[in-house]
Amino acid sequence: MAFPADVRVVEVGPRDGLQNEATLVPEAVKVDLIARLAAAGLRTIEAGSFVAPKWVPQMAGSAEVLKAAPRRPGVSYPVLVPNMKGFEAALAAGAQEVAVFAAASEAFSQKNINCSIAESLARFAPVMEAARAAGVRVRGYVSCVLGCPYQGEVPLAAVVDVAERLSQMGCYEISLGDTIGVGTPRKAVAMLDAVLGALPVEQVALHFHDTYGQALANIYACLDRGVAVLDASVGGLGGCPYAAGASGNVATEDLVYMLEGMGIRTGVDLEALVEAAAFISAAIGRAPASHLAKARGY
Amino acid sequence: MAFPADVRVVEVGPRDGLQNEATLVPEAVKVDLIARLAAAGLRTIEAGSFVAPKWVPQMAGSAEVLKAAPRRPGVSYPVLVPNMKGFEAALAAGAQEVAVFAAASEAFSQKNINCSIAESLARFAPVMEAARAAGVRVRGYVSCVLGCPYQGEVPLAAVVDVAERLSQMGCYEISLGDTIGVGTPRKAVAMLDAVLGALPVEQVALHFHDTYGQALANIYACLDRGVAVLDASVGGLGGCPYAAGASGNVATEDLVYMLEGMGIRTGVDLEALVEAAAFISAAIGRAPASHLAKARGY
Repeated sequence: MAFPADVRVVEVGPRDGLQNEATLVPEAVKVDLIARLAAAGLRTIEAGSFVAPKWVPQMAGSAEVLKAAPRRPGVSYPVLVPNMKGFEAALAAGAQEVAVFAAASEAFSQKNINCSIAESLARFAPVMEAARAAGVRVRGYVSCVLGCPYQGEVPLAAVVDVAERLSQMGCYEISLGDTIGVGTPRKAVAMLDAVLGALPVEQVALHFHDTYGQALANIYACLDRGVAVLDASVGGLGGCPYAAGASGNVATEDLVYMLEGMGIRTGVDLEALVEAAAFISAAIGRAPASHLAKARGY
Repeated sequence: MAFPADVRVVEVGPRDGLQNEATLVPEAVKVDLIARLAAAGLRTIEAGSFVAPKWVPQMAGSAEVLKAAPRRPGVSYPVLVPNMKGFEAALAAGAQEVAVFAAASEAFSQKNINCSIAESLARFAPVMEAARAAGVRVRGYVSCVLGCPYQGEVPLAAVVDVAERLSQMGCYEISLGDTIGVGTPRKAVAMLDAVLGALPVEQVALHFHDTYGQALANIYACLDRGVAVLDASVGGLGGCPYAAGASGNVATEDLVYMLEGMGIRTGVDLEALVEAAAFISAAIGRAPASHLAKARGY
């Protein structure tokens, strides 16, 4: 395989990033952030999560955020929905794309969403059906693909199985997430290759956390398999609930810097992105976690 | 080529790291750091620099540090020497290995050491001769191999030329440094491949700074060329004098995590290394810059 010529960067900062920050961000600031990200050229921006605010207070107001996000041709704003209730609320708020979140680890599924992997998939079935009826696209996440904070090792067969089931249920894209960032390049490639035995590369996205600083190396290692969709979080927003103080998602600007430096097009204006990182980092009262923002003096 | 089975990590924190930190570290703390690094299993620890203290006050006392560093079989403590005066002082302090520092960029050479590349190499000639006579090994650095803060692009031919000359002059190993951390994986591999057209891989080391977060991706990209010597700095010590607040050398613990995760042996005890990072970071009054130390709660 060869490196892709273009990569679509899926910006998850307003959701996966902010839901793991301690500071609650006002809706207007989230909308401003999303507008800046869209203006910087990002085409897929995860805008929020329709979960119970008592569980994830950071995501309260996602309906208002989604409604106020600037409509731009070619830009989509997926939102996370855990179940039918969340899906219906997302639909009412105008969602045209949603995401469902499963785990490759039984222990993580039990601890995180209080049911088995099979039960979580069963819970998604009516969501998939309702989404199909409403013309709403569904993205699927598989978490813990390279390790689990509770059970440690996660069998590759479990990753492949969950990815394949989400695809069969109708997800147009499966994002493979190293939720706790423990993966290293060889393991990342082995995991990806296992999934590519079951799914076409066009359906696969990668979602790496930078907990141990491995995210860009893992992404680089996987790129020559032709994966052309990569999740990232502006400013390296977020963290890891299983390791206090740890880094969050790979920073979008560090990823874009690598891709553009490799001659891979992203369509993203790097300086506008760094400014968006500085904006949201200031709003939550901390320095941006990305290397690029630091190098730019933020 | 294939990945190396073993990598020798060259720890440059006590020199390249601390010389770029604003805080002056007492000699006893440097000696303590070096002892911790040796105890963690590092076999090459750059212990200081014999430059004029008025130019680099952080490196004052390098003679005392070198004298007090714990002698361990198989552990060497190279020190940087800019000229004969520095070499003689290093020799008097018991140095058994020294390092010389040239640039691949004419503009950098002029600004950094106030002479052309050719003049700097001529200045090293008597050092090389004296070192040979004294049975002292010499390591050669080439800086700015992927870009220069003053002239921007650096021709690959210049990198190859300086590396080859240092080798011909008697350096046993040439460390190729991305001094300002601008490189991305494809460019890093292209640079390495150019050098490997002139030098055997056994003579080549890589020295990446993490200014833009690219260091581990660059290292991973180069590893399958068989390079088995990698420079790194405990705790990500250091910074970039050309970008205030920017990251320094790649953190040794993040590198060791990647290598060990790939099944490549380093002989380094990761937890002891993280403790050393926490120790020196506390001594200079900041949080460790490495992902691993953050993930461990430091």
